[in-house]
Amino acid sequence: MEKQELTILVVNDDGITAPGIKVLLEVMQELGRVVVVAPDSPQSGMGHAITIGKPLRLDKVNLYQGVEMYSCSGTPADCVKLAKSYIFKGRQPDLCVSGINHGLNNSINVLYSGTMSAAVEGAIEGIPSIGFSLDDYTLQANFSFCVSYVKTIAQQVINNGLPAGTLLNVNFPNTADIKGIKICRQAKGKWAEEFDERLDPNKRPYYWLTGDFETQDAGEDTDAWALNNHYVSVVPVQFDLTAHHAMGLLNSWSWE
Amino acid sequence: MEKQELTILVVNDDGITAPGIKVLLEVMQELGRVVVVAPDSPQSGMGHAITIGKPLRLDKVNLYQGVEMYSCSGTPADCVKLAKSYIFKGRQPDLCVSGINHGLNNSINVLYSGTMSAAVEGAIEGIPSIGFSLDDYTLQANFSFCVSYVKTIAQQVINNGLPAGTLLNVNFPNTADIKGIKICRQAKGKWAEEFDERLDPNKRPYYWLTGDFETQDAGEDTDAWALNNHYVSVVPVQFDLTAHHAMGLLNSWSWE
Repeated sequence: MEKQELTILVVNDDGITAPGIKVLLEVMQELGRVVVVAPDSPQSGMGHAITIGKPLRLDKVNLYQGVEMYSCSGTPADCVKLAKSYIFKGRQPDLCVSGINHGLNNSINVLYSGTMSAAVEGAIEGIPSIGFSLDDYTLQANFSFCVSYVKTIAQQVINNGLPAGTLLNVNFPNTADIKGIKICRQAKGKWAEEFDERLDPNKRPYYWLTGDFETQDAGEDTDAWALNNHYVSVVPVQFDLTAHHAMGLLNSWSWE
Repeated sequence: MEKQELTILVVNDDGITAPGIKVLLEVMQELGRVVVVAPDSPQSGMGHAITIGKPLRLDKVNLYQGVEMYSCSGTPADCVKLAKSYIFKGRQPDLCVSGINHGLNNSINVLYSGTMSAAVEGAIEGIPSIGFSLDDYTLQANFSFCVSYVKTIAQQVINNGLPAGTLLNVNFPNTADIKGIKICRQAKGKWAEEFDERLDPNKRPYYWLTGDFETQDAGEDTDAWALNNHYVSVVPVQFDLTAHHAMGLLNSWSWE
């Protein structure tokens, strides 16, 4: 396959100026022609939100020399929709990559993640899609030890494709001492939230979401285990949410 | 089980003043004590968004006589998180219901739906949870023929519980001639988007998301088929997104 023939859509949720997307687009430039469409502001925690009730802006920007880049006022999923309909028009990109996110999206966090929703949106369109995330939430995150893995994983997806209806959720531990790649399942877990209640200057209360993530799953086949043990976790993700195993049970209920 | 012992959390994504949530809370009052926590403005298409970078407001309101109600400035998922942590504190509600949404959330729309994300959030917390949606997007939607089904389905879930990690996605066809309930799988489909490009008064372009939903699945076991044939569709939904069937394939790839 000719390098020049591949077109790669690069998206994220931390916003177009985030360091993580710069690392990702630079790796992708080694594999094909890159088009970046990213939010004009941070969109962490946007889940699979789309913009329905208001219009979107889309501006061509020149942030990095020689890279076709667009800044979008919408969500990560909006970015992919606009890229598909407005920028690529008929011709699909060959790969859609999202990230590298400043912060983990393993376990149940796949649901809250704007990074992953952009990749899911790509996969719904039939584009081989991957979300990448690093276990460092700061803007100073060091992505250098992710680079070779990002390239390997993207190359494998380009070479092999992905089964219909699936995409990859890739998370990196925050260590230079990476032991390798593990194919994993999503660990069971949840956030133990607390809301920090404060009073505004007018004495009205407001609430900040805080809390700790609790893994409820000690399985050595989970992404949580892999990351804790310095592996890159690769979870195949599907967007058919049907709990097929529960259908028989529900059919046995009395529905009069 | 004593009627008085049940506590039911009612949420939605169309906002606390939407007619659909009034219908839902009135049905739930026949089954237990109702607590409503709903967004202070419409949140359609919010997916599983949560509010991270700004604080939330939560105000007790007296919209309907004798109903404990809270208006929240956040997303549907935020409403459930605040209800759990701040209103219910230690004690979990016995049931979490979301809707009735003004508009369908079948097929792939489960991903974009704020209605369903609230129910998913309830299920993550281990609360038996159900999302309800009607195939009528207007504020004048007629929910009268949903009422008996909403009660039956909620009662079945109260009586039987739901398997761990699952919830229900219930959609109603917009007809008084309902043929019954069908347990379904999520139909394959996607939005064929178009963006309506316009110029603002300063001649800058902006884009409105429009488009048509395309079912790509003729299966008679799907929610799309059930709705088209005047059945209430009930899809068991899971939030483990792992594509377990793809793990073997990925393990066969070369990961050097």
